[in-house]
Amino acid sequence: MKNSPENKNRVAVRVPGTSANCGAGFDCLGVATTIYNYLDLTLLRNGKVIVDSSGEGAENIPRGRRNLTWVAINRLLREVKREDEFKGAIIRMKNNVPISRGLGSSSAAIVAGLVAANEILGAPLNRQQLLKIATELEGHPDNVAPALFGGFTVSVMENGEVQTFSFQPRIKLKLIVAVPDFELSTRLARKVLPRNVAMKDAIFNVSRASMLIAALLEGREDLLPLALNDALHQPYRKKLVPGMSEVFDAAKAAGALGAVISGAGSCLIAFTTARARLEEKISSAMVESFKAHGVKARSLILDVDRRGAQVLRR
Amino acid sequence: MKNSPENKNRVAVRVPGTSANCGAGFDCLGVATTIYNYLDLTLLRNGKVIVDSSGEGAENIPRGRRNLTWVAINRLLREVKREDEFKGAIIRMKNNVPISRGLGSSSAAIVAGLVAANEILGAPLNRQQLLKIATELEGHPDNVAPALFGGFTVSVMENGEVQTFSFQPRIKLKLIVAVPDFELSTRLARKVLPRNVAMKDAIFNVSRASMLIAALLEGREDLLPLALNDALHQPYRKKLVPGMSEVFDAAKAAGALGAVISGAGSCLIAFTTARARLEEKISSAMVESFKAHGVKARSLILDVDRRGAQVLRR
Repeated sequence: MKNSPENKNRVAVRVPGTSANCGAGFDCLGVATTIYNYLDLTLLRNGKVIVDSSGEGAENIPRGRRNLTWVAINRLLREVKREDEFKGAIIRMKNNVPISRGLGSSSAAIVAGLVAANEILGAPLNRQQLLKIATELEGHPDNVAPALFGGFTVSVMENGEVQTFSFQPRIKLKLIVAVPDFELSTRLARKVLPRNVAMKDAIFNVSRASMLIAALLEGREDLLPLALNDALHQPYRKKLVPGMSEVFDAAKAAGALGAVISGAGSCLIAFTTARARLEEKISSAMVESFKAHGVKARSLILDVDRRGAQVLRR
Repeated sequence: MKNSPENKNRVAVRVPGTSANCGAGFDCLGVATTIYNYLDLTLLRNGKVIVDSSGEGAENIPRGRRNLTWVAINRLLREVKREDEFKGAIIRMKNNVPISRGLGSSSAAIVAGLVAANEILGAPLNRQQLLKIATELEGHPDNVAPALFGGFTVSVMENGEVQTFSFQPRIKLKLIVAVPDFELSTRLARKVLPRNVAMKDAIFNVSRASMLIAALLEGREDLLPLALNDALHQPYRKKLVPGMSEVFDAAKAAGALGAVISGAGSCLIAFTTARARLEEKISSAMVESFKAHGVKARSLILDVDRRGAQVLRR
């Protein structure tokens, strides 16, 4: 690549799709997966915002200044006080992460913009600072944290500040994602949750989330079937995803260690180990079970992404 | 020691005092500490139950067949169908764990009886089986699990069965325990808890308990101040322990990483690292703060016990 003025302001990044909650870890746990969105960003001196997207959801992605990736870029430019220097961008996206299915497509769009713009500007912000901005833009850290850091992340909000611990699981997991052909808005999926819950359900998740973190960190796959269960959100979201319980049962009957809603849905995700070699069997069982409930679904067989958002080239 | 028939049926064990909950880990997390109860047990062919106890609570410990250690021994004898062989016992106890203060004295009494009797009988049950019996007798696993296994334990109840993960923390912790001169019954401390809680409080603890396990397993003491906080039980138990919040504040002002109710109280427990050498300062601050609220308290400076219940000699 020539070192022309054009190229100095251009960078390509890759950002993973993510799955929040993982059952018991409601509203704090997230995992990065090996499905990626690609962004080729050029910052412009002039005020043009040109969006050229292909792949998932290309027809519905806002063009111009309402584009979420641009919103994130613009937010970062203002944060580092360089919004007068760069007033526009060429945003070329190739998206593989399904839209509005609970795989963190909006988080990926935000993180891609932030990481790419930060790189072009000479990395004025570190990843913790990028996490803070991304969390503000997305409204919660559950997906932006694993999109940035890779692996699994535990995020805690305190006084409006996010603190994240990221780690690689010591179990070689395979994630089987059943992707139904309908979208589910996070807003609707939040609305069905009650404001109050039984103390016993709170304890149910506190104990299992604790066990889940221990199991992942210490390589105890035997504890996952217990630890992946949830009593705080999935029971309420069941009605939004026809056949949810049955797809979970089908996945487990096919050998999965557990199955959960990915984020706020509509995707369902089953966990198995690479060693078990059951991913094809589980995948078929989930798609078939969805079909039996009148839901057309496809499936993705993914690994845990270990690296998070990556700069590919300048 | 002579290998007389008498001695074959005699064993001495040591069991640690324990602290349940540790803030965010409400109703699932526990830790074993370096304060110990000692039991010198002789199983008898005849039906006499002789209890000889010294130390903490000696005057109030039931003698005869209502003694909790005998109840546990008897339960084990029936479990392994040897209740006709041994109908009584000489129970010599030396107790250091304060009674009814949230340091697991009843769990220690149960675990001591089970481990000692099991040893005399030639270890017919493994520790997991002992845990099951101890949990039944105590009603919950939070204290019996660390008393048996040592270190920290995460316990989950599912379908009436207990599953426990035990681990050594990768932070060299010092535990400063302020022991008020009043007892607090677990029954009363349970009564003040509501049946329902806000979803946001449930999430508060799910996220912090997850962070706490990660911090302990990965040696991240910087995360403890955030991770030790609780919204599910301490706010309700505050009224049972005069000055609780102020003692917590005093401990933190003296440099503690966090402070929590030990179990259901009345003890309060602060966490620091051995490296910080702040245990004396924190200890004084806690005792002084209690005093300012009209509560006479003494303090214990403890480490994490790593081994759990131990057979000392036969």
